[in-house]
Amino acid sequence: MFKKIMVANRGEIALRVLRAARELGIKVVVAHSEADSQSLPVLLADEAICIGPAPSAQSYLNIPNLLSAAIITGAEAIHPGYGFLAENPQFAEMCRDHGIVFIGPTPESMYSLGSKAGGREIAAKSNVPTVPGTGVLQSVEEALEAAEAIGYPVLLKASAGGGGRGQKVVRSPDEMKTAFAQAQVEAQNYFSDPSLILEKYVELFRHVEVQVMGDGKGHVVHVGERDCSVQRRNQKLIEEAPSRLEEPLRQEILAAGVRLAKYVNYQGAGTLEFIVDPEGNFYFMEMNTRIQVEHTVTEMVSGLDLVKLQIKIAAGEPFTLQQSDIQLRGHAIECRINAEDYEKDFRPSIGKVETLHFPGGPGVRVDSHLYAGYSIPPHYDSLVAKLIVHGESREEAIARMRRALSETVIEGPGLKTTVPFHLKVMDNAFYQRGVVYTNFVATRLLD
Amino acid sequence: MFKKIMVANRGEIALRVLRAARELGIKVVVAHSEADSQSLPVLLADEAICIGPAPSAQSYLNIPNLLSAAIITGAEAIHPGYGFLAENPQFAEMCRDHGIVFIGPTPESMYSLGSKAGGREIAAKSNVPTVPGTGVLQSVEEALEAAEAIGYPVLLKASAGGGGRGQKVVRSPDEMKTAFAQAQVEAQNYFSDPSLILEKYVELFRHVEVQVMGDGKGHVVHVGERDCSVQRRNQKLIEEAPSRLEEPLRQEILAAGVRLAKYVNYQGAGTLEFIVDPEGNFYFMEMNTRIQVEHTVTEMVSGLDLVKLQIKIAAGEPFTLQQSDIQLRGHAIECRINAEDYEKDFRPSIGKVETLHFPGGPGVRVDSHLYAGYSIPPHYDSLVAKLIVHGESREEAIARMRRALSETVIEGPGLKTTVPFHLKVMDNAFYQRGVVYTNFVATRLLD
Repeated sequence: MFKKIMVANRGEIALRVLRAARELGIKVVVAHSEADSQSLPVLLADEAICIGPAPSAQSYLNIPNLLSAAIITGAEAIHPGYGFLAENPQFAEMCRDHGIVFIGPTPESMYSLGSKAGGREIAAKSNVPTVPGTGVLQSVEEALEAAEAIGYPVLLKASAGGGGRGQKVVRSPDEMKTAFAQAQVEAQNYFSDPSLILEKYVELFRHVEVQVMGDGKGHVVHVGERDCSVQRRNQKLIEEAPSRLEEPLRQEILAAGVRLAKYVNYQGAGTLEFIVDPEGNFYFMEMNTRIQVEHTVTEMVSGLDLVKLQIKIAAGEPFTLQQSDIQLRGHAIECRINAEDYEKDFRPSIGKVETLHFPGGPGVRVDSHLYAGYSIPPHYDSLVAKLIVHGESREEAIARMRRALSETVIEGPGLKTTVPFHLKVMDNAFYQRGVVYTNFVATRLLD
Repeated sequence: MFKKIMVANRGEIALRVLRAARELGIKVVVAHSEADSQSLPVLLADEAICIGPAPSAQSYLNIPNLLSAAIITGAEAIHPGYGFLAENPQFAEMCRDHGIVFIGPTPESMYSLGSKAGGREIAAKSNVPTVPGTGVLQSVEEALEAAEAIGYPVLLKASAGGGGRGQKVVRSPDEMKTAFAQAQVEAQNYFSDPSLILEKYVELFRHVEVQVMGDGKGHVVHVGERDCSVQRRNQKLIEEAPSRLEEPLRQEILAAGVRLAKYVNYQGAGTLEFIVDPEGNFYFMEMNTRIQVEHTVTEMVSGLDLVKLQIKIAAGEPFTLQQSDIQLRGHAIECRINAEDYEKDFRPSIGKVETLHFPGGPGVRVDSHLYAGYSIPPHYDSLVAKLIVHGESREEAIARMRRALSETVIEGPGLKTTVPFHLKVMDNAFYQRGVVYTNFVATRLLD
């Protein structure tokens, strides 16, 4: 096992990695920006090393500084957390080149799974469904033919595009001609390339993802799935495990996730994201080759420590966990508490935390880097605490989350959090009944 | 289900009951002494009602005041917590007489199990072993004969006694004559009655207890057992679940616990305490007819909420939980954090909590009524927080407890807690190997 590792991240995930390492008897170096010198993981670290100024490009994304920090402190391995460099294959490669273990999958896996096209190709090869679609369309006639075959509604997308720009939903053949011309113009304008592709448009769907762990030698297990459909602008806000999918659909998705991960001899922790429509069709979207924010709900239902497993696998310990060893129990929910003013369109709200009180009692877990007196820096994302509950049933978990949220106090001058938002969701009848698609926040939370 | 219940207790257990009730949608009245008007359960309560001055006799033990408080506030039931009136059958009876549900067993069960003789009698009838012993001895010759039959060492005890007074350990026939005479004198002095009994003296033992839940109609399940051998002056300091007893001994003790509880048609949550000697002999000591401080470790391994189950059973909900429904997973440890100066012989240490930071992350539960700014009153016991961890194995639980303790900050002017004591235990090789008898603190923790 490693003697010392470095965390190349900040906030709650730096603390999460520190906790796992400490329980394994590993010394922890926390690499931090100038803005994070008083953060809780830095204060709790065995060693802390500053890697640059607050802007991420100069610190948490600064590969030379991070590698130097690891070398100077004698860290044998780097845990990248999530975000920042966690899914950057060049960084993983450079770690390897410098004799430092990257706690994650191989750079090769990250390269091949990192692009949308690569992911689709691997999915096809491992017989995992993706959203039906075409290559580049030559004409509006070809688009009409493809749409007929796939079934309306369809989505016209710029082949070179991304981020939703140049996309047009087409609901009938009548709309195709105009939409095709408009989309071509927009594609040309945004991406200097008028090429279009066409995909089935899934209007209403759940976001369901499969947690896998692999040893890089073909042994892969899943640790169940999560539902992350409570989102706002593609940002997850509430996650739960298990999903509310019926059998055998649930088993089919889990099997698909394992199949794909096995196909690439996946190493470490990974998540396969699927969309599931109301008819029970499911489509692979992408694989996240890292630990995720919401891994906590999986830990609650499985009793496993996924971050420790990541570290053990990276250290070369035999990964002997069998699928039959993994027993999922009860229901877990995570609320991401962000420093945002929910009533003012989730506007970021920073400041000093003067009064802090987290809930306790049965089935409550808090992952947070906050402490009383801590000033939330303005440079980073707004996640300040993850409140996770576990109950025998989804109903108990919801009641527990409501209770836990009501005990939570995070106060300071001008500071707002999304606690009121989460309380509103817990009280929402649609949420309680489990009828949650990704449009939930936009359509079901109206006053 | 009840609409409103009253908690007739304080501190962490009042908060524990409040949390359970709130998750069940029940309004909570917290009855409190003048000294506890700023306590966390009072601040979080739906209603709070003062029942008298700080001394317990005038408030938490004041039955007329408590009953009046329940009647005034319209509470349908009273949860007594542990300590104070929790095992007082007269109180349970008076609740019943006033049409208020006592959340606990029937007064009849409490009467019959409450006395040492009663417990032994029920144990004998339900074929549960107790420490071999005699009735009142007529002469030293009879004592010698009995000691021969039971086997040395034996314990001479005042028949009318209690609390260890007038007890003499006798290790051989040679010592009997003198010891008998001395014990008679002491029994006369302390209890005005020279009558003696004799019991097998179990020198080295573990404290193992069985958690049961019953519906009062003969259906009883166990929720596993706990080991509570880390004690100081008969005061439990650290508890864990499961015990480290080998099979089939463990199953025999669990079965004995269920047998005894079934014999009395036990209702609600109860704990059967056993001593287990190094040879694997076990003896029933007594039954605690209430929730215990250490119920938390059982909740961690079972995933059940025992306080909710208490409330549901008291409300007359069908108790349908079957033994096969109860699956225990992993290992849990509880450290009782007391406001005491461990380095000064555990001297009580009260004061204002100025800085408070509890640990979080996977497998960590905190039950505490502390908050930053709270002044610990001098009138009550010194328990200020329960830190409970759960891990896949005992080894992981110990590493996690050490990590969690190291994150814990409870500071104020002159305030000391037993956190350093617990850290020392977690680092102790005997504790880590699981070789823990009730003499552990006295003999294995020497510097």
